[in-house]
Amino acid sequence: MNLSFPLAARIPAALDVRDQFPGIGDWAYLDTAATAQKPQAVIDAIARAYGPDYATVHRGVYARSANMTERYEAARETVGRFIGARADEIIFTRGATEGINLIAQSWGNANIAAGDRILLTQLEHHSNIVPWRLLADRTGAHIDVAPLTPDGAIDTPALIALLTPRTKIVAIAHVSNVLGGIADVPTIAAAAHAAGAKLLVDGCQAAPRLALDMAALGADFYVLSGHKLYGPTGIGILWARADLLAAMPPWQGGGAMIESVAFDCVTYAAPPLRFEAGTPHIVGAVALAAAVDWVEAIGVERIHAHETRLLAEARAALAGDNRLILHGPADSAGILSFSLDGVHPHDIGTILDEGGVAIRAGHHCAQPLMAWLGVPATARASFGAYSNADDVDKLVTGMKRVRKIFG
Amino acid sequence: MNLSFPLAARIPAALDVRDQFPGIGDWAYLDTAATAQKPQAVIDAIARAYGPDYATVHRGVYARSANMTERYEAARETVGRFIGARADEIIFTRGATEGINLIAQSWGNANIAAGDRILLTQLEHHSNIVPWRLLADRTGAHIDVAPLTPDGAIDTPALIALLTPRTKIVAIAHVSNVLGGIADVPTIAAAAHAAGAKLLVDGCQAAPRLALDMAALGADFYVLSGHKLYGPTGIGILWARADLLAAMPPWQGGGAMIESVAFDCVTYAAPPLRFEAGTPHIVGAVALAAAVDWVEAIGVERIHAHETRLLAEARAALAGDNRLILHGPADSAGILSFSLDGVHPHDIGTILDEGGVAIRAGHHCAQPLMAWLGVPATARASFGAYSNADDVDKLVTGMKRVRKIFG
Repeated sequence: MNLSFPLAARIPAALDVRDQFPGIGDWAYLDTAATAQKPQAVIDAIARAYGPDYATVHRGVYARSANMTERYEAARETVGRFIGARADEIIFTRGATEGINLIAQSWGNANIAAGDRILLTQLEHHSNIVPWRLLADRTGAHIDVAPLTPDGAIDTPALIALLTPRTKIVAIAHVSNVLGGIADVPTIAAAAHAAGAKLLVDGCQAAPRLALDMAALGADFYVLSGHKLYGPTGIGILWARADLLAAMPPWQGGGAMIESVAFDCVTYAAPPLRFEAGTPHIVGAVALAAAVDWVEAIGVERIHAHETRLLAEARAALAGDNRLILHGPADSAGILSFSLDGVHPHDIGTILDEGGVAIRAGHHCAQPLMAWLGVPATARASFGAYSNADDVDKLVTGMKRVRKIFG
Repeated sequence: MNLSFPLAARIPAALDVRDQFPGIGDWAYLDTAATAQKPQAVIDAIARAYGPDYATVHRGVYARSANMTERYEAARETVGRFIGARADEIIFTRGATEGINLIAQSWGNANIAAGDRILLTQLEHHSNIVPWRLLADRTGAHIDVAPLTPDGAIDTPALIALLTPRTKIVAIAHVSNVLGGIADVPTIAAAAHAAGAKLLVDGCQAAPRLALDMAALGADFYVLSGHKLYGPTGIGILWARADLLAAMPPWQGGGAMIESVAFDCVTYAAPPLRFEAGTPHIVGAVALAAAVDWVEAIGVERIHAHETRLLAEARAALAGDNRLILHGPADSAGILSFSLDGVHPHDIGTILDEGGVAIRAGHHCAQPLMAWLGVPATARASFGAYSNADDVDKLVTGMKRVRKIFG
């Protein structure tokens, strides 16, 4: 492992936003793929929304409630614009996981029958496996699993070869949460549609890193998580094409999602409200819009370029150690998994933590991918807009210490 | 309508917490049953949790994530203590609505069959009707509806008379969100159990007003909403008896709720995690605990007594107008619905808003109760810990203006 050069001296600060994050200081926070730290602008928006602006939505006849309703619906517009979609195709969910469950239950129960096939990939997060496993168990459908390329990206031609006339849905991660590989969504979407299947894309790791345009991607369903996008916890987005949403039955019942209620007959509101039962996470939606505004003011392409540069430097610095295995494709998006021969990733994580470096160690909610890698767990460093070359230096220094301790 | 006396002069300030609420000032906010304003202590807890304390839970190997996990699980303990329940019987949900949907889908699909009966009451909120209507539609079960007493409370003997051996679940509001009547939960629980049925209680309006003890109430399921309890949006609680939770199948799939995942076989974690798929609303849980701490420091009995006194004064002042109908029982908990002959409640709400008084006007997500009342909508004033006699004065003055405008 070549540790002779200070990376900080060589990498120009492509982004200089770190002092906007009250949660970081000089901490080398390299767990952004788990959750992003929050800029002060988002925290301020939250405090305002719970303080002088606070009111419920959709119901109040007084001015402040009407204003909050406007902010809530404006958040839908903001997120829609951010991903290149119509506002009425945006459903606020608790997070990406709930978005996938909503599709697997509402769309899935209505469209999947015994003998149908659901096509996933070997690298999916549990949130993009378990809802489909539950659906398959309910319906008698089969799950097919697309293989990976040797470096751990989705093997697109092999995935396409698995499509059959019985394949009703394909569900893939846009960016792998473990290896960082970027899926070729437009090609997979075209092939899925040619086979008569729908495509759901888990955009949790893509939304903070890649410019998104739903029309260009060609997917049918897209989910993302607010807390990974520099926004609050407890909020996420499900995007779905309007014609699909219109045909989907309600999933959860409650206030706001109905037209009329009697005990023997309920009629339902049009989407998106049909899928937002109960008082929504009002402040979550408003603050997610603040997070999107913050990301857009920087430019997601600049964040991606910044992370890509840091990741390349980390990869180069760590590659010098021949006992250290770097998993995943070289052009991964902001996420780097690695293993050190003979050292458990949890020990790596603990020792790095002592040096002020936070990484994640574990199966990353992707046990089938761990099985494919042949390891029970990996160490994972992941970057964000606030990451800098000092963080990379500390990671490399920390790994030097790990090597020293474990001989 | 007797408007000759200033109420503020006659009511001692039983609670003096108003200056802790940055969202109120001299606004007469009488829509607390829709959502409560937030004390600064809760807003500060949120800012801290998104700032210097921020990290994910259950997964990090670094110290700050371990600390946040402790806070998250401590929030479960805090809420459990607040309602007299074990921490491992507390499930964090998006809100009360999601809690009811979780029961109707996980417990309901496993325990309700064609010909079974579900017993609701005429005053339920849509969130405690629609999930059961959806369940009845899926399974072929029937919905029975318990009637109300003439003053709009649940008629307990009449409800008990509707129990049959096929009744599998009774679902009732602890406190009506429209009329404020308090259900006799222990009596209904005993009767339901004697008939072999379970009891679900919607505690949205009770939790901010009544001291709760799950053992004493005797229910099987209890749901509440954080934002009505001076806490954040996007978080709520489902409590269920441990033996029932243990037997319930998973509802949503994802990270955190599994033991192991392969494409052909998934094993699930024990409750409560089995029912918390995905990254939770971390800050929501931590801030809900801060809200509970705030409520406990005052004492929920004192809040109830304070609201009861204000409500009695409002009732007395408004009762002088013989064209004004006061709905609901005289001993209602903090909530007062009323109608003014010949004036639409929305007009009342708009005119009151001009005088700095916020009430709610509409069907309050309780259309079957509106049908029973024989009105399309009511005006509703609801009180909170921060309400004071000035608010009542302004309401009464505002109603005087409504009468003047409408002759």
